[in-house]
Amino acid sequence: MMSQGPIWSRRAALAAALGGLSLPLLPSVSLAQADPLPSWTQGDAKGRILDFVARVTTPGGPDFVPVEERIATFDNDGTLWAEQPMYFQLAFAIDRVKALASQHPEWTTKPPFDAVLSGDRAALAALGEKGFLSLVAATHAGVTVAEFEKTVRDWLATARHPRFDRPYTSLVYQPMLELLTFLRASGFKTFIVSGGGVEFMRPWVPATYGIPPEQIVGSSGRTAFRLDGDIPAIVKLPEIEFIDDGPGKPVGINRFIGRRPVFAAGNSDGDLQMLQWTTLNTGPRFAMIVHHTDAEREWAYDRNSSVGRLDKALDEAPRRGWLVVDMKNDWGRVFPEG
Amino acid sequence: MMSQGPIWSRRAALAAALGGLSLPLLPSVSLAQADPLPSWTQGDAKGRILDFVARVTTPGGPDFVPVEERIATFDNDGTLWAEQPMYFQLAFAIDRVKALASQHPEWTTKPPFDAVLSGDRAALAALGEKGFLSLVAATHAGVTVAEFEKTVRDWLATARHPRFDRPYTSLVYQPMLELLTFLRASGFKTFIVSGGGVEFMRPWVPATYGIPPEQIVGSSGRTAFRLDGDIPAIVKLPEIEFIDDGPGKPVGINRFIGRRPVFAAGNSDGDLQMLQWTTLNTGPRFAMIVHHTDAEREWAYDRNSSVGRLDKALDEAPRRGWLVVDMKNDWGRVFPEG
Repeated sequence: MMSQGPIWSRRAALAAALGGLSLPLLPSVSLAQADPLPSWTQGDAKGRILDFVARVTTPGGPDFVPVEERIATFDNDGTLWAEQPMYFQLAFAIDRVKALASQHPEWTTKPPFDAVLSGDRAALAALGEKGFLSLVAATHAGVTVAEFEKTVRDWLATARHPRFDRPYTSLVYQPMLELLTFLRASGFKTFIVSGGGVEFMRPWVPATYGIPPEQIVGSSGRTAFRLDGDIPAIVKLPEIEFIDDGPGKPVGINRFIGRRPVFAAGNSDGDLQMLQWTTLNTGPRFAMIVHHTDAEREWAYDRNSSVGRLDKALDEAPRRGWLVVDMKNDWGRVFPEG
Repeated sequence: MMSQGPIWSRRAALAAALGGLSLPLLPSVSLAQADPLPSWTQGDAKGRILDFVARVTTPGGPDFVPVEERIATFDNDGTLWAEQPMYFQLAFAIDRVKALASQHPEWTTKPPFDAVLSGDRAALAALGEKGFLSLVAATHAGVTVAEFEKTVRDWLATARHPRFDRPYTSLVYQPMLELLTFLRASGFKTFIVSGGGVEFMRPWVPATYGIPPEQIVGSSGRTAFRLDGDIPAIVKLPEIEFIDDGPGKPVGINRFIGRRPVFAAGNSDGDLQMLQWTTLNTGPRFAMIVHHTDAEREWAYDRNSSVGRLDKALDEAPRRGWLVVDMKNDWGRVFPEG
């Protein structure tokens, strides 16, 4: 199925020539790793991914894509980590409202802050994008980027997911971690393209996914440069600058990456235009949708979910040839161990 | 002067072990290249660059910077390529006004288009940022990004610089090309951070500087995603989205790169805040200013220039320890041969 041929065999020849000398300059891919996607069950989903990567990495083949064009983009919420019962960034914003409430007595009577402080779950569930953004604007601004990132780090170090009682960063999908690693080992440059806030993601994405800060595209607030004596800072302002969702995703990809991806993964209608932009009217391309079908190990939801609604993209997938991953059947494991 | 030690010596050990076998997987740096900056004259400027790179790449040394933190940012106009007698992008915009004039009869009486069409050099010289941006908005929008990039490519293939009668992309600075290559060979990730338009730069920057599209930060107009049947496109709208100049440069660096650079190069007051953001109140950092002092081989200008004005940053350089490169004396060659 895999013909990683040229790269792997050159590396093998090199290893043989060196007689086992360690090669600190070479990418750290184990030569012995027969299956790059061990947490994917044997079947169509895994087979299609392996086949696609083999095709675009076979020099001289009809679908070969040069290394510099191998761009892969991944949604985050619901695609790389879980997003139920609410976006994890919303859980963070709610905890921030509680932490900052004593400085804002007016919040006790002001929507949507009142709902947060009184624990009104129904009102929170009906928050919608506008309410979410007002919470974000109020709790993510008025500090420097460095201060904000420290707040995120501190929160992640202590907050626990209500259902799994685990740190949020442990609720990433093991099969997707393997896919990221496999694509990178196959010459792809991997990017996050998420509706989540870029500065919410940067503190933990590099260590969690192996994706550096400059390869994270997300929603953002306006910022300003400030020089206080000889101390420079970037200050977060309470204004939305960019929403990286829906048609904003191809716009963000154009702005930050500057070319069309070869591979894209999402899980909701917010990813529809990214999948279109990746696959339509172009060369060999691959798009996949993570379909949440596993209520036991994770959650089962799609067309009518308030979070991660998957409806139009699910309708469009068959005629576009997009892979719909059935989490329950295609993934042998959901979360990493421990 | 150079103690590239670990990387170079490991590579040398590897080459010895292999007995001359070619190493296609290793970065293509010649082992025999004793001087990574041959177009820089021997002296303080070159010495300081070599010394800094040696210090931040020496593991265990007091100034060591891990590879993943080695971010280098470069202004473009006047730092990597020339910018006289006008920004090259303005020359492009002027040629576009002329090419599109027959579709815009109203331009013959409408500033600043009238000045372009009548060849009023004094009016063009006094255009200022606002006039420049109105030309850009009118000539860079209403097309898809792909169409625009083709227009840029076509223009670069035929346009000649008025003084040198050479293609604009040949008026890049050979010493800076060597510096980019040297930094990359030393583990740095190199970025453009320019006031120029990002979509004006993307068609030629990768081949010219070895910097991929996703590592180009620039000014930008708004765009929108459009799906016409099954044909997706990103359309350029006639609205300015972001001016990557002055205090906009650290803002752009934060947005696109997400951490502070270790090395930054500029040539004008538009780079002042980038140099501050790079060097102040942090670890080992290097900032340099290309000072245009060579009227014979290039141009000589600084404090009162209408293009590339260098005044405040020149005042600030000594107390900040920023290297001011004297083009006339520090560069043995300015442009590449041919």
